[in-house]
Amino acid sequence: MGMEKEIRPLKLQQVKVTDPLFGHYINKVSEVMLVHQWKALNDDLEGTDPTGCIKNFRIAAGLQEGERQGVVFLDTDLYKWIESAAYCIAIGSGTQFEGKIDQVIDILEKAQEKDGYLNTYFQITAPEKKWTNLVEGHELYTSGHMIEAAVAYALATGKEKFLQIAMRNADLICRVFGTKKGQIPGVPGHEEIELALIKLYRWTRDDKYLKQADYFVRQRGTAPNYLQNEIDGRKGPEFFPEFRNYSMKYAQAEKPPVEQTEAEGHAVRAMYLYSAMADLAKWQQDKEMEKACDRLWDNMIGKRMYITGGIGSSGFLECFTTDYDLPNSTNYCETCASVGMMMFGQRMAALKKNASYYDTVERVLYNTILAAMNLEGDRYFYVNPLEMIPQFCTENTYMDHVKPARQKWFSVACCPPNLARTLASLSQYLYACDEKGIYINQFISSTLSVDNSGQEIFVELKSALLTDGTVDIGISTLQATDIRIRVPAYAKDMEIALDGEKLSYIADNNYAVIALKGGKHRIELNMGIHPRFVAADHNVRADAGKVAVMHGPMVYCLEEADNGQNLSDIYVDTDANLLKGKAYEEFPGEVPAIEYEGYRVKSVGIEDGSLYGEARFTKKPVKIRAVPYAFWNNRGIGEMEVWQNISI
Amino acid sequence: MGMEKEIRPLKLQQVKVTDPLFGHYINKVSEVMLVHQWKALNDDLEGTDPTGCIKNFRIAAGLQEGERQGVVFLDTDLYKWIESAAYCIAIGSGTQFEGKIDQVIDILEKAQEKDGYLNTYFQITAPEKKWTNLVEGHELYTSGHMIEAAVAYALATGKEKFLQIAMRNADLICRVFGTKKGQIPGVPGHEEIELALIKLYRWTRDDKYLKQADYFVRQRGTAPNYLQNEIDGRKGPEFFPEFRNYSMKYAQAEKPPVEQTEAEGHAVRAMYLYSAMADLAKWQQDKEMEKACDRLWDNMIGKRMYITGGIGSSGFLECFTTDYDLPNSTNYCETCASVGMMMFGQRMAALKKNASYYDTVERVLYNTILAAMNLEGDRYFYVNPLEMIPQFCTENTYMDHVKPARQKWFSVACCPPNLARTLASLSQYLYACDEKGIYINQFISSTLSVDNSGQEIFVELKSALLTDGTVDIGISTLQATDIRIRVPAYAKDMEIALDGEKLSYIADNNYAVIALKGGKHRIELNMGIHPRFVAADHNVRADAGKVAVMHGPMVYCLEEADNGQNLSDIYVDTDANLLKGKAYEEFPGEVPAIEYEGYRVKSVGIEDGSLYGEARFTKKPVKIRAVPYAFWNNRGIGEMEVWQNISI
Repeated sequence: MGMEKEIRPLKLQQVKVTDPLFGHYINKVSEVMLVHQWKALNDDLEGTDPTGCIKNFRIAAGLQEGERQGVVFLDTDLYKWIESAAYCIAIGSGTQFEGKIDQVIDILEKAQEKDGYLNTYFQITAPEKKWTNLVEGHELYTSGHMIEAAVAYALATGKEKFLQIAMRNADLICRVFGTKKGQIPGVPGHEEIELALIKLYRWTRDDKYLKQADYFVRQRGTAPNYLQNEIDGRKGPEFFPEFRNYSMKYAQAEKPPVEQTEAEGHAVRAMYLYSAMADLAKWQQDKEMEKACDRLWDNMIGKRMYITGGIGSSGFLECFTTDYDLPNSTNYCETCASVGMMMFGQRMAALKKNASYYDTVERVLYNTILAAMNLEGDRYFYVNPLEMIPQFCTENTYMDHVKPARQKWFSVACCPPNLARTLASLSQYLYACDEKGIYINQFISSTLSVDNSGQEIFVELKSALLTDGTVDIGISTLQATDIRIRVPAYAKDMEIALDGEKLSYIADNNYAVIALKGGKHRIELNMGIHPRFVAADHNVRADAGKVAVMHGPMVYCLEEADNGQNLSDIYVDTDANLLKGKAYEEFPGEVPAIEYEGYRVKSVGIEDGSLYGEARFTKKPVKIRAVPYAFWNNRGIGEMEVWQNISI
Repeated sequence: MGMEKEIRPLKLQQVKVTDPLFGHYINKVSEVMLVHQWKALNDDLEGTDPTGCIKNFRIAAGLQEGERQGVVFLDTDLYKWIESAAYCIAIGSGTQFEGKIDQVIDILEKAQEKDGYLNTYFQITAPEKKWTNLVEGHELYTSGHMIEAAVAYALATGKEKFLQIAMRNADLICRVFGTKKGQIPGVPGHEEIELALIKLYRWTRDDKYLKQADYFVRQRGTAPNYLQNEIDGRKGPEFFPEFRNYSMKYAQAEKPPVEQTEAEGHAVRAMYLYSAMADLAKWQQDKEMEKACDRLWDNMIGKRMYITGGIGSSGFLECFTTDYDLPNSTNYCETCASVGMMMFGQRMAALKKNASYYDTVERVLYNTILAAMNLEGDRYFYVNPLEMIPQFCTENTYMDHVKPARQKWFSVACCPPNLARTLASLSQYLYACDEKGIYINQFISSTLSVDNSGQEIFVELKSALLTDGTVDIGISTLQATDIRIRVPAYAKDMEIALDGEKLSYIADNNYAVIALKGGKHRIELNMGIHPRFVAADHNVRADAGKVAVMHGPMVYCLEEADNGQNLSDIYVDTDANLLKGKAYEEFPGEVPAIEYEGYRVKSVGIEDGSLYGEARFTKKPVKIRAVPYAFWNNRGIGEMEVWQNISI
């Protein structure tokens, strides 16, 4: 069997997603998002300001005159677009992008300096400042995205021109950064280069990239603190005024990552760092690093994560705050942070060979990731609140960062391309394999082909997870093989039938292990799940005395479109019958609405013109209808809430 | 009777506050606050950075060399200190400050330029920029505080040297600002000069100051918009980086004040503007202006005010947001805004001769104003939250502006001196008089002497408002006179006995009018009040399904010191018996704690290491003890909440 000893995701080409829900969104990536984003990159998107993205590269390449424009890290928009388009090429929906990418690669080649340097801001605007502002300059972050895109394009097409560009840049970074004489003992303000270098190592098998990633992680937070010294030397922010109070905690650099215990600082940066840490723990068999990853994961999952899988409680500085501080309407929960969390979760699963990490990946994927895009695929959430009163998101206030509707584009447009690359490469989160056999990590309808010493194993998974909680898996294999199927925490009594016979199993690291003989097999899963009320730990003050509705991995919410205004007046009994209602035709995947009886409680003792008065309340029965959080704000702007008061 | 036709407050000298609760705080003004603040002004306050306040004046006066230091409007700290000290002198507790003030006035005289200009920032640091940055420079605001202080000092001592300085400055402003040729058609970014000029008019009876105030109010928000043009010309903030998105709404200048309908923008500025508007409506008998005041007041009181009388829902830009948006833990509710609200309410009461405005003044006074200072008088809240989870107020987050404990001093120290001047001049809010007689606006133990055509009327008010809801008023008058007693909204069935006989009355503009013959009289009020639960309009989403406890004007809260942690687990029945418990010895005024039965509801279905899980709750009876919000955080740092969940 041509598989590695280590657990690893499969090539995208091996998986075909056939799921109507995820298929809908994946199709939008190539049909809408990348078309839309390509226009934005080329200053051709109607109704938005020109971004200058590709123009900047043309200027750097000497193909055009002009001033560079946009945020310092704008180059990454192109790189994430290329990465996404490469994944689309790999899954067969992106051939139309290949010519465009090749043209852009020609520009990149011209723009790259002899020594490998490539960054339009520092080449055009501030050549004398290269590598001088690691805190805010985002050069290493930008290079990281270049490397990720180049690896993806090489994997998708076999063409290596872009990879050569990225490697020249990576080689430069290896020469410039380190603790040897003449090197800069620096680390990036925004992590990303670390995990990118590890991807490059996995492609090239050149150990130096792994070592360089290891350097960046280990050097971080050591004394003398490079980032702190840089800030102290500059006495004020250069690019981002909000960085006046930049702290080492914000930068995950208060102490070396291997010693860290809590998920801290800017949530996206944290995820990228932790992903690299999990990679290093695995590829260098580093137990100390693995323990650090365990601690950071446990802290994040156990104390700092929203039910939707969102992270980042603070709109200010887009960061983690403290344990159990999870406000629902002023939160950040950046889409990119959720993307990063899927990356971290996938790497932890590979490191620990434990399916439970995929429970969290699934939570993020079905909720925050899907919610980040509208059904048409042309509007995006950057911030993902769990409660929305549209008129309270007024300008210039504490909720300025929260928008009541998805936006067309953003001045810092990191989220849409990040969403695109995640959806286009969704296959990597569905299956994995190693010498023991195949791992089924998600229950998303799809097919899988694995080459097993020249003989193909073929898997066809048909999921009704979100409707009746069943999954049907057809497998054809010539040789005996093991199949490992994730047993989700919400389906501890999952029933498995193999070829029509009920199978008893003891989950191993949350995988049900099924040994198959050669031949054709049918595995039927019955999750035994029903819509359910879920509560939060009582230390989450924002959710005290409240419940949310879930079905399988899907978090539901109440929308004004179904339940009227003043959703905060709605109360539920936790023993109410949660019934699967008809799915909305406009929503993909036939995911049912959930219907139940509840109450409307209303303060009615207040005199006209007053805000406060007699504590008199009416309580009237009401029918409640909840829809998947993933689909909110697809029927106009209105109130929304995930957490509902309980009748006590 | 030597009274004006118009309703007006009395001179501070005429009233002596004997109330144990308010007396406690008023004593702290002269004994602690002003001593403390004097040190701060003189860079002599231990444990805080030097402010440079008086040093700046000495530099401007040529008495010292050096660079000016502190925020652009730092001079106002001295002016508010002088104003407060003047009030203390008037009420007999401030003689020790008179020498200090006179010395400072000598410095001011030396610092003032020939034409009347006096502002240390623009004299020392940027002489070429005088009157060029009305948006942020705060010159007119600073002059306003100078004028208020000068009038107060003249009233207290009869000495007019400072008043002459202030008048020279006011005269300069009258010459510089206006729509005539050669004048600047500007208005202040931060209002204050308007109401100060009206105070000066009332002292001097010189009409030009009233007209100048009228100019500033009427010119505001007219086209071409002076403030907008100034900003457009500057392309970016000069003093305050957060003013990047400065809007005309923020500055109450989107349209002329007389056309405005909603309380908007920076809450303190709004209050100062509205106070001047109410003054103008009164002194110019301007019905249009009066209608604008009515609209703004009604909008604020009916849709944008916290139960504690706090205003300003947004920590960002310290401003109003929108109707019913009243979050309890991320709010601003600046102490200064509450000071301004008392000023606005007092002026509205004088304008409308209606006692209901004093209900709001009372709400602000008993709750946000008292809560802003600790019992020792040496620590202050700038921001006044209604819910506190101390560990959630972490650094660099969305709650950075909220502090879990009162602070010693602030880099922008507007609130403590503002609090000092309000408490020291509290008498002005207690009584008023006009040709009709005496108005009793508050039920705070005190004595009053009014000269009635050479014959004294003496009032001695003994209040048990906060304990058993009774008030005993002794009056001695030689001539017949009317007494008007406010009937609070919370005591609509207030019983009145005159000389032992029950009196029936119909409230006139919320005043019970009692015609007294000459002689000695005793009026006994029985408010008929008991501790009560209060609810909010159901559009206040933050308070939906919640109640607060009040007794008379006093809002109560739960503190961790009495009720343990996780206050959000506490539930109450709205028909629970609210019992007056023993007052805490450490709190002044013998204000009772309120005790009642309730429940603790706890989410208990969550597995270790998880945040979310089975919706299983326990409900256990618990004894709850509420204490006045005014006293919170006087027993260490801990959780606090005003609004409690109701059991439904």
